[in-house]
Amino acid sequence: MIILRNIQIIIEYDGTNYVGWQIQKNGLSIQEVIESSLKMALGEKIKLVGSSRTDSGVHAYGQSANFFTDCGIPSDRIPYALNTHLPKDIRIVHAYEKPMEFHSRYDARGKVYLYKVLCSQHASALERHRVWHIKSSVNINNIQDALPYFIGTMDFTAFSSTHTHTKNRVRTVRRLEMERIGGSMLFTIEGDGFLYNMVRIIIGTIMDIGLCKFQTKDIPDMIQNKDRNKTGKTAPAQGLYLKEVLY
Amino acid sequence: MIILRNIQIIIEYDGTNYVGWQIQKNGLSIQEVIESSLKMALGEKIKLVGSSRTDSGVHAYGQSANFFTDCGIPSDRIPYALNTHLPKDIRIVHAYEKPMEFHSRYDARGKVYLYKVLCSQHASALERHRVWHIKSSVNINNIQDALPYFIGTMDFTAFSSTHTHTKNRVRTVRRLEMERIGGSMLFTIEGDGFLYNMVRIIIGTIMDIGLCKFQTKDIPDMIQNKDRNKTGKTAPAQGLYLKEVLY
Repeated sequence: MIILRNIQIIIEYDGTNYVGWQIQKNGLSIQEVIESSLKMALGEKIKLVGSSRTDSGVHAYGQSANFFTDCGIPSDRIPYALNTHLPKDIRIVHAYEKPMEFHSRYDARGKVYLYKVLCSQHASALERHRVWHIKSSVNINNIQDALPYFIGTMDFTAFSSTHTHTKNRVRTVRRLEMERIGGSMLFTIEGDGFLYNMVRIIIGTIMDIGLCKFQTKDIPDMIQNKDRNKTGKTAPAQGLYLKEVLY
Repeated sequence: MIILRNIQIIIEYDGTNYVGWQIQKNGLSIQEVIESSLKMALGEKIKLVGSSRTDSGVHAYGQSANFFTDCGIPSDRIPYALNTHLPKDIRIVHAYEKPMEFHSRYDARGKVYLYKVLCSQHASALERHRVWHIKSSVNINNIQDALPYFIGTMDFTAFSSTHTHTKNRVRTVRRLEMERIGGSMLFTIEGDGFLYNMVRIIIGTIMDIGLCKFQTKDIPDMIQNKDRNKTGKTAPAQGLYLKEVLY
């Protein structure tokens, strides 16, 4: 008797050299590379379901995905089996046995992202693919003041890409914090879900407030107007990290 | 009248793709790349004097070097002039006008290095070129206990490469601290100078103590015996960072 199993894997990756999570025609995706490693390790052609379609250049400490297999490898050995066949910029850090109905995307009840900004005169050699470098000095108090405005349940249309096809654009941001580490700012944002580019546009808008292009008191109007053209720039991909998917 | 100037530059680099600081026949060095940028920016063939010959894979937040030039560029513009011609894994972060007698190596009164160790079951994708990854669990108390033994003025022969030609192997370690950040250990070591591979052998020995291959109480004998064969492994290059050169 073949016993089918549902395996969840947690993946850390450096998104620099990939077109993003999802399989695309124009280059190598993280999903595709992991599916190849599944084929090599388990001898099966397996389709991987990821929780988030991270863009090119976006990193992950804890992307979550699941797949079905009838292989007999104990779940704690699966990371070793896959890592052997993966490039070093992708690592499976955990694997868990899940009920058959578990779905890494539909069952997610939230996500935590990090965003790193480096404010300094010159760029960083070591962090060049890991932060958004801003040369101008920013007003930290304005940035701190802006954060609470984004917390809550609201229509985030103004903070999503105009290419979003999602109809319901109401999302709940549960947490948005900023920690200063040397010359860097590390933002942590947690929500029930995020629209396309939502984290990057929120961060871009907050940094525009720090650069005094917008004022904190403009934020309620921005939200109300639902107009992407009246919010800030989209922060670049390389500062963004999918930290954790919550179930 | 030509006025000769002595310029000190502070350099951040990711050592991953270089054979090290010093010009060598077997590949591209950081010194060589910066000398090329000096030629492009200033139109002169300039010899750069670095304070430390970091090995291949070793990084720097604050390597220090100096050069003589008769160019008229104000010192605060020099980083911009050079960075334009440098690859993004090398950044000039400061430049200072110095007296003619200043020598970046001979005038150094100390150096600060960082060393990063990641203890985890699986390697890190994002930190793969930035840390020494150790799979086994280590005894943190033993590591903490070992640190003070390396502080002081002593003959560090047992903790230097057998390829060292330096005759006087007495050095002063002023500070050796370890900070835990998540699953990582960040060591900071400051001394008046370091023998070839000295930081990496001290860290390798400390980690062997953490892995219970040696005991803390063995350290005085190790120092006394001056025998490289009785000390720990040389920690790998990619965890080491030249943080600052002190003058």
